[in-house]
Amino acid sequence: MKPNSIRDMQQALVERFGEDFEIPLSDEAADRLSCLAGHRVHRDFLDRAVDPELLRVLCACAMSAPSKSDLQQRDIVIIQDPDLRRRIGALMPQYPWVLTAPAMVIFCLNGRRLPQIAEWRGKPFPNDHCDLLFNAVGDAAIALAWFQASVDMAGLGGCPVSEIRNHAELISEWLELPEKVAPYAGFCLGWPSENGHITPRLPLSVNVHTDRFADGHARQDIEAYDCRREALQPARRQRDPDVWGNAEAYGWSEDKARQYAVPLRTAFGAYLRRQKFDLT
Amino acid sequence: MKPNSIRDMQQALVERFGEDFEIPLSDEAADRLSCLAGHRVHRDFLDRAVDPELLRVLCACAMSAPSKSDLQQRDIVIIQDPDLRRRIGALMPQYPWVLTAPAMVIFCLNGRRLPQIAEWRGKPFPNDHCDLLFNAVGDAAIALAWFQASVDMAGLGGCPVSEIRNHAELISEWLELPEKVAPYAGFCLGWPSENGHITPRLPLSVNVHTDRFADGHARQDIEAYDCRREALQPARRQRDPDVWGNAEAYGWSEDKARQYAVPLRTAFGAYLRRQKFDLT
Repeated sequence: MKPNSIRDMQQALVERFGEDFEIPLSDEAADRLSCLAGHRVHRDFLDRAVDPELLRVLCACAMSAPSKSDLQQRDIVIIQDPDLRRRIGALMPQYPWVLTAPAMVIFCLNGRRLPQIAEWRGKPFPNDHCDLLFNAVGDAAIALAWFQASVDMAGLGGCPVSEIRNHAELISEWLELPEKVAPYAGFCLGWPSENGHITPRLPLSVNVHTDRFADGHARQDIEAYDCRREALQPARRQRDPDVWGNAEAYGWSEDKARQYAVPLRTAFGAYLRRQKFDLT
Repeated sequence: MKPNSIRDMQQALVERFGEDFEIPLSDEAADRLSCLAGHRVHRDFLDRAVDPELLRVLCACAMSAPSKSDLQQRDIVIIQDPDLRRRIGALMPQYPWVLTAPAMVIFCLNGRRLPQIAEWRGKPFPNDHCDLLFNAVGDAAIALAWFQASVDMAGLGGCPVSEIRNHAELISEWLELPEKVAPYAGFCLGWPSENGHITPRLPLSVNVHTDRFADGHARQDIEAYDCRREALQPARRQRDPDVWGNAEAYGWSEDKARQYAVPLRTAFGAYLRRQKFDLT
């Protein structure tokens, strides 16, 4: 255990949220939680393989995560075939870590197993509707989160790759995903070659409420967050300056507004329907 | 750090998955990961309050979790008002911990902030479609997972309460959720009064694949899992015996098939549409 775990956790949280926290925890608990509070993204890796047994342990940890009604509606596909990895990487050359990370897995939502079980047990399944998708997305996301935490705690590093949903049709074909199974996100991992950094997040005043949802002050709080974040980690470049020019004050909200000012994954709903998810 | 952390983790995983794992990790890393691998649900709590500052720290940890494209499309509503808590508890008397847990929060998906930001920054938002919901569900689920891990690591215990989605309309009204915000799940927490137990999970042969999704052997693997799980933790009672009788071999798959043999949350898609989520 590190000697200053409470101070470490306070430092991580002040960097993350720009506000102070008391940490009413033992040193040992603070040491554990500082892994979660201090989460960092890693996309650059040492030239060192991830032991297949370690990858199996990490998958087991992911599958130990909570699951809606214990339905376990998520799957992991380990990408081992170098040719398959190359093809996936070639779809998204803007993310070179998809090719260079020592290991890659893809998390899938699985709305197939539950109706399968119903059939095997001779039961009707009157639940082929939006809830099936909703639960399976949640289950896949929770498993991915548990995987990320396990990766971090094992001393490895990694990053989710939701870009694979921009190519859902091809990925489904290559991974031979059957009906009612769809990719949630990829995940690239390895032994990190850099420290990474803490991503500053919205102050809790914006997204933690008491008793009632209240975001009347969100706009001014987000403007302050934009400034804090830019001061800590200035954007390397402005997005689409040919369309939007160079903003004098460029922050998180300007960047996200520009990112989503063009249509993205507009065909994803149609893809889910083709995978036989009923969204009614 | 506990002296036998690798052995502890091996024991948790063999109980969880019914198979052996080598743990190619340091003692220190194994100690951290055993919290995730050994995750237990807790629904019975000591009569001891959760310090509000500790709850704030746990919310901060949850909001430190990964988020799709850093969009942060999730919110937490802390349920503090005793009357509000009583009303929520009265909706689901079959889950008494909703009333008795020392603290409760509700995780929400937020598809509102992104179009809000677009408006504030004078940008178009051509992304009001299924992807907005999908991303926000994932973000809410990831934050809930990170919260659960933080609760566990702090020495507290808790459980998600997705039943609140069975009452999405009322919960939305009571929490004053605006358009494009919806509940993902509640979470009850406190200082646990019992050890809890490890929930056995499907063997990795069912849901961890290599290169290609392949579940041809799932039926027999699930039958073996049913037996293993029943031997470890026999079902206390069979579900709906008046409809389905008393099965001689009653396991996970029979239980889940019975649970979903009746229509559940069939109106949830309509609710999401009323909250102005576009599912096309």
